[in-house]
Amino acid sequence: MVGGDRAGVTADDFTLREIERDAAKIAREAGELLRWHFERALNVQYKDERQSDPVTNADYACQRLLEEEISRRFPEHGILGEEDNAAERERVDGQPAPDFVWVLDPLDGTRNFLSGLPLYASSIGVLYRGAPVVAAVFLPWPSDEGGIVMHARRGGGTRINGVSLPALNATAPDGNRLVTLPGGFGGMFSVRKDLRRKAGELRMTGSIAYELAMVAKGVTQYTITTAPFIWDAAGGSLLVKEAGGIVLQGGERKLLGRLPAGMNWRPLESFVPSWSSGATTMKELREWRAPLLLGSPNVARYVAGNLRGKARVRQRIRRFIRR
Amino acid sequence: MVGGDRAGVTADDFTLREIERDAAKIAREAGELLRWHFERALNVQYKDERQSDPVTNADYACQRLLEEEISRRFPEHGILGEEDNAAERERVDGQPAPDFVWVLDPLDGTRNFLSGLPLYASSIGVLYRGAPVVAAVFLPWPSDEGGIVMHARRGGGTRINGVSLPALNATAPDGNRLVTLPGGFGGMFSVRKDLRRKAGELRMTGSIAYELAMVAKGVTQYTITTAPFIWDAAGGSLLVKEAGGIVLQGGERKLLGRLPAGMNWRPLESFVPSWSSGATTMKELREWRAPLLLGSPNVARYVAGNLRGKARVRQRIRRFIRR
Repeated sequence: MVGGDRAGVTADDFTLREIERDAAKIAREAGELLRWHFERALNVQYKDERQSDPVTNADYACQRLLEEEISRRFPEHGILGEEDNAAERERVDGQPAPDFVWVLDPLDGTRNFLSGLPLYASSIGVLYRGAPVVAAVFLPWPSDEGGIVMHARRGGGTRINGVSLPALNATAPDGNRLVTLPGGFGGMFSVRKDLRRKAGELRMTGSIAYELAMVAKGVTQYTITTAPFIWDAAGGSLLVKEAGGIVLQGGERKLLGRLPAGMNWRPLESFVPSWSSGATTMKELREWRAPLLLGSPNVARYVAGNLRGKARVRQRIRRFIRR
Repeated sequence: MVGGDRAGVTADDFTLREIERDAAKIAREAGELLRWHFERALNVQYKDERQSDPVTNADYACQRLLEEEISRRFPEHGILGEEDNAAERERVDGQPAPDFVWVLDPLDGTRNFLSGLPLYASSIGVLYRGAPVVAAVFLPWPSDEGGIVMHARRGGGTRINGVSLPALNATAPDGNRLVTLPGGFGGMFSVRKDLRRKAGELRMTGSIAYELAMVAKGVTQYTITTAPFIWDAAGGSLLVKEAGGIVLQGGERKLLGRLPAGMNWRPLESFVPSWSSGATTMKELREWRAPLLLGSPNVARYVAGNLRGKARVRQRIRRFIRR
């Protein structure tokens, strides 16, 4: 949905508080819907031929619920969702993006969800002119309510069900703390000796939004995700920032057909390089994709400084030799 | 605890039903105790110099609770727990094991627990003359009660809070289903080409008991664990078996200082090679340790047939070359 009068739209704290409050409420409703569908029969389809990218009726129902709640409360805001169908994308993508855009991953970790593994998330990230300003992420949790909502607004800190989180203040990686890394990590990065012993205890959850939230919560000390979409990262990246952490974006992945050895990590400020109200399109937002490294500032910078991207050519040679 | 009159002790279904009912109740109490401690301040100690094996006051409190409840109800049964202190081990280990022994992991996944990651378990496995006959495993879960108890008795099937689980009936590995593997897997095993594409979507939880339960529940299609202790496996292995799955035990790990290339996987029937009432000691149970591969019978056998143990010598050479 695109439209509305943008004159006078500002992202002052009063406005952001209102959006944060509503986003947290809406994320809770989305979470309840997902909890209802979890471990019940699902209708599963695949978005790709290899059947590696499943989507269920729960994903669609949850995106519809989110869209309805958002457009009822904020009719002038834009909405960009993972499960937008082709017609919606067609209609919306060429148009200028409104200053406020809600970026939705109604169900991140669909494969876990349909397998019955309770590691998934429903993620809302609200952007103002491309930069994340409000987040609300529902996570299933063994609490009395069966779930928590982590939420934040720019400058307001990160909270769980209203209660502020302590700031991320680790100064160095600790080999005994948890980290999450993607499956293909070893094939894409080499880790310098200094970091190797301190890299941490590896977990793999299969949900990027869940893993970003775990960094914000101080559960894991850092995470790397190699090719997230904007809906995977829009909510969780603000949760990490507002908890005192840092979000580093890696250089372009396909520079000359290979990963650059130095990854050129730099703080992610916005999902579009330069915003121009009335000109920047929804398509530009939708097409963002980049490696991210998130953690407390010192830990994330240390890790970034001790990783090298592996050249694809070297990878291919190695694969060939192994045959 | 060791003792009691063993004359006439049998593992008939009436006896096992009673033990299963009580084990499930006790596991629920243990789970509630853990849920109370989760995300509260913990007193953490380490059992090793490298500080890789943490233990908390929650582990100890939970083991005490389990011991009290078991010895009150079944004073003649033996108890073997991960957190037995040196004096308990000293007193108990040389003695003959009673026919019934309760094997306890009060808190499996301690590092997750103390980090605030809700992937942990409290595991009870009851052995009769070394073979698992009753299991009850508490798992934190985003249900209204915040947790579930999976339980089973020999011949009775696996249940969750009393409701029977469907039988594990997958006939072949599916590349789109979930699997859990240990961190060092790639360094220890090579995977034959046939299996590679079908190996599955990798998750790593950091709790063996949790991962065994996920196989029993049909969430993951198989799991491998390279060096579990008896308390990691005693409960979960029966959950898998009674859900229609198979538990394969790999050959000795330290044959001539290297992993044998063929792993000699065979069904785990008992945690002691041959039981002799009055002679088999608690120490023999405590010292069991072997690789396990669990899944539906066809899937587990297919995976077993497509794995090779890597020779340690080759590993060392490879490490040397990489420097």
